[in-house]
Amino acid sequence: MTTASLVQKKHKVTVVGSGNWGCTIAKIVAENCAEQPDLFEKEVQMWVYEENVSIPSTSPYYNKEVGETPQKLTSIINTHHENVKYLPGIKLPVNLIANPSVQDAVKDSTILIFNLPHQFIDKACRDLTGHILPFARGISCIKGVNVTDDGIHLFSESIGKGLNIYCGALSGANLASEIAQEKWSETTIAYAPPPLDSLSSAESSESEDDDLSHRDASGKKSTVTLTPIPAEYAPINQTTFKKLFHRSYFHVRTVSDVAGVSLSGALKNVVALAAGFVEGRGWGDNAKAAIMRVGLLEMVKFGEAFFSTADRATFTDESAGVADLITSCCGGRNYRCAKMAVQEGLTVKEVEARELNGQMLQGTSTAMEVHSFLKTRGLEAEYPLFTAIAGILEGKHSVDEIPDLISDN
Amino acid sequence: MTTASLVQKKHKVTVVGSGNWGCTIAKIVAENCAEQPDLFEKEVQMWVYEENVSIPSTSPYYNKEVGETPQKLTSIINTHHENVKYLPGIKLPVNLIANPSVQDAVKDSTILIFNLPHQFIDKACRDLTGHILPFARGISCIKGVNVTDDGIHLFSESIGKGLNIYCGALSGANLASEIAQEKWSETTIAYAPPPLDSLSSAESSESEDDDLSHRDASGKKSTVTLTPIPAEYAPINQTTFKKLFHRSYFHVRTVSDVAGVSLSGALKNVVALAAGFVEGRGWGDNAKAAIMRVGLLEMVKFGEAFFSTADRATFTDESAGVADLITSCCGGRNYRCAKMAVQEGLTVKEVEARELNGQMLQGTSTAMEVHSFLKTRGLEAEYPLFTAIAGILEGKHSVDEIPDLISDN
Repeated sequence: MTTASLVQKKHKVTVVGSGNWGCTIAKIVAENCAEQPDLFEKEVQMWVYEENVSIPSTSPYYNKEVGETPQKLTSIINTHHENVKYLPGIKLPVNLIANPSVQDAVKDSTILIFNLPHQFIDKACRDLTGHILPFARGISCIKGVNVTDDGIHLFSESIGKGLNIYCGALSGANLASEIAQEKWSETTIAYAPPPLDSLSSAESSESEDDDLSHRDASGKKSTVTLTPIPAEYAPINQTTFKKLFHRSYFHVRTVSDVAGVSLSGALKNVVALAAGFVEGRGWGDNAKAAIMRVGLLEMVKFGEAFFSTADRATFTDESAGVADLITSCCGGRNYRCAKMAVQEGLTVKEVEARELNGQMLQGTSTAMEVHSFLKTRGLEAEYPLFTAIAGILEGKHSVDEIPDLISDN
Repeated sequence: MTTASLVQKKHKVTVVGSGNWGCTIAKIVAENCAEQPDLFEKEVQMWVYEENVSIPSTSPYYNKEVGETPQKLTSIINTHHENVKYLPGIKLPVNLIANPSVQDAVKDSTILIFNLPHQFIDKACRDLTGHILPFARGISCIKGVNVTDDGIHLFSESIGKGLNIYCGALSGANLASEIAQEKWSETTIAYAPPPLDSLSSAESSESEDDDLSHRDASGKKSTVTLTPIPAEYAPINQTTFKKLFHRSYFHVRTVSDVAGVSLSGALKNVVALAAGFVEGRGWGDNAKAAIMRVGLLEMVKFGEAFFSTADRATFTDESAGVADLITSCCGGRNYRCAKMAVQEGLTVKEVEARELNGQMLQGTSTAMEVHSFLKTRGLEAEYPLFTAIAGILEGKHSVDEIPDLISDN
């Protein structure tokens, strides 16, 4: 440690993705890199999917000579330090550099932050292969998991496997618009690379669990061959990520449970549908709190059943767990659409089609995927709320049956 | 067991108290006693503090001959099966009998349910002494705890000591008006009498913890000399209380942690003040969920620190814990008054005086009592949120300081 600290190279950070949440996270990270020049390179790269954007005449950035002629989004961001399309009204740090080339953006970066829609993960990994430092480490800010009948796949794992790196996860009660405005919030970062002997001791000391492996349907373990971080760099561990993400308005807690953090972010959407159903039915505050409690316990049970590394405290104690569940059940579009469906006598699918302009609710697809996963294993009765929600979405049950269906909880 | 079941005497149940919540609980209990004649006496007694009530001409119970001449509340309840003053519009079961004499109401009752304002507990115990069966068992539905610098006293313990019986506790996300209308909800019943050799094995088998004792300031243990339940009665245990309280619209879960159930019901009001402050300040959904999470963990820490029997799962998993916290932070008057205070630039005391018609917020007094208790022990820094809330109530801190004050959570 002492020798290494004398010759430390700084960590370079790249954010892959630049939507609403991507820019919000990039803002935080760039602020911290500017304030900690001993540990991080000041300049933070952000990959932006290039598109042409015209600046309306009402914008403070409108230029008479250019008029409303479309300009490149990267150039707008690098000139005005604002993503006028996806995070308008929020000033981005001047040390955050928009880059239209994902390969160039990640060049020499030791820390990669992934924050793009989950359907683009595979392509991003293909584009990045051969262009990243082999010893880079990642954090996925992409919420949710991919559930198939074969098993449950965490997005952080998909990235890790795709790039042959270790990738942790960040999740929490994090509505991007509030954080971009620097309203106080909390988040959870899960980071625990496997304890490879070849890793520096400072890096591996925090990671006692074999977090890259979990039992899936076939009992397979997924592993990644990690490249140790060279000694001239400071180690990358939970403390590094706390320094990179923690702000006075964005409080970070770190855990080792990547599975719990990722699962919470997916399963809470199923519970939010249930909360919407119950509230839409006019059952009041007691019932809504009860549904959230029952849902939380099924989330814990699911996590413990299918991930050997999942820790119930991630669900019950952390921002990624109970706090994110609360925001999702009190606002959020899964909750709102489910409530509307009950109030108007429509199916959730009908409300989704009418309200979401072609987008899909995450809760409905997760509910059906989880249901199919459980059904394949004959475990429907073990998860009565999840099963009831799937049954309601399928039209097999009515909302009024919920109390009876979950009666033994 | 098999011998006893052949000669079982039925349990007689009395509800001590008849306000809004008292009548709601009495309705539930009377419904269950009527449906389980093998286990319970059908007739349930309810002690009513007698008062004269006039029935307005708009009431369906108005009688022209009587006019609006005040009538005894017990007589109104026993005639019309409705508490027109405290739970108007709700039909009470015909087997629920209002009784103005508390001594007569408890005569021969093996199960006593306490549901009256906490300031009347001592007097009720004095009035009942010598009039109850010595082997009666109790359940307190009175929310909260009594915190002094000397220690923390549970209402169930005060009742237990006052009457020399064992008394458990019932608490949950239970707004009485919703339950009275049979809207679905959940509750938690904590019941775990100490394992006296003299008790029947069926009774004591569920109670491994010495639940009548806890470490208070002086390390004293409070104990009660229990009288065993005679063999001709069915044992009284968690199963008995599940049968007595569980309805299709009122789901019961039983636990052994009386301290956790009672503490949750008190401390959640302190957290609700914090939630109101944060929402009043316009910090949004992330911040509110974060405050609830931090508050929940301080509740757990407080419970584990001062009650050897407290179980963190009571706080994180049960209706009395996380679910009641949610309802209190999303509605409830502690939350509402705190929010108003911030929005209007008033102190909570000023809002309390203006809004509550002489009544007091439970959250403010609990916050100051808990603060004084912690200060006496030099533990303020261990509970930064509780300490911050007391500081705000005292005018020493502003709401804007909350994130910094709780920064290491």
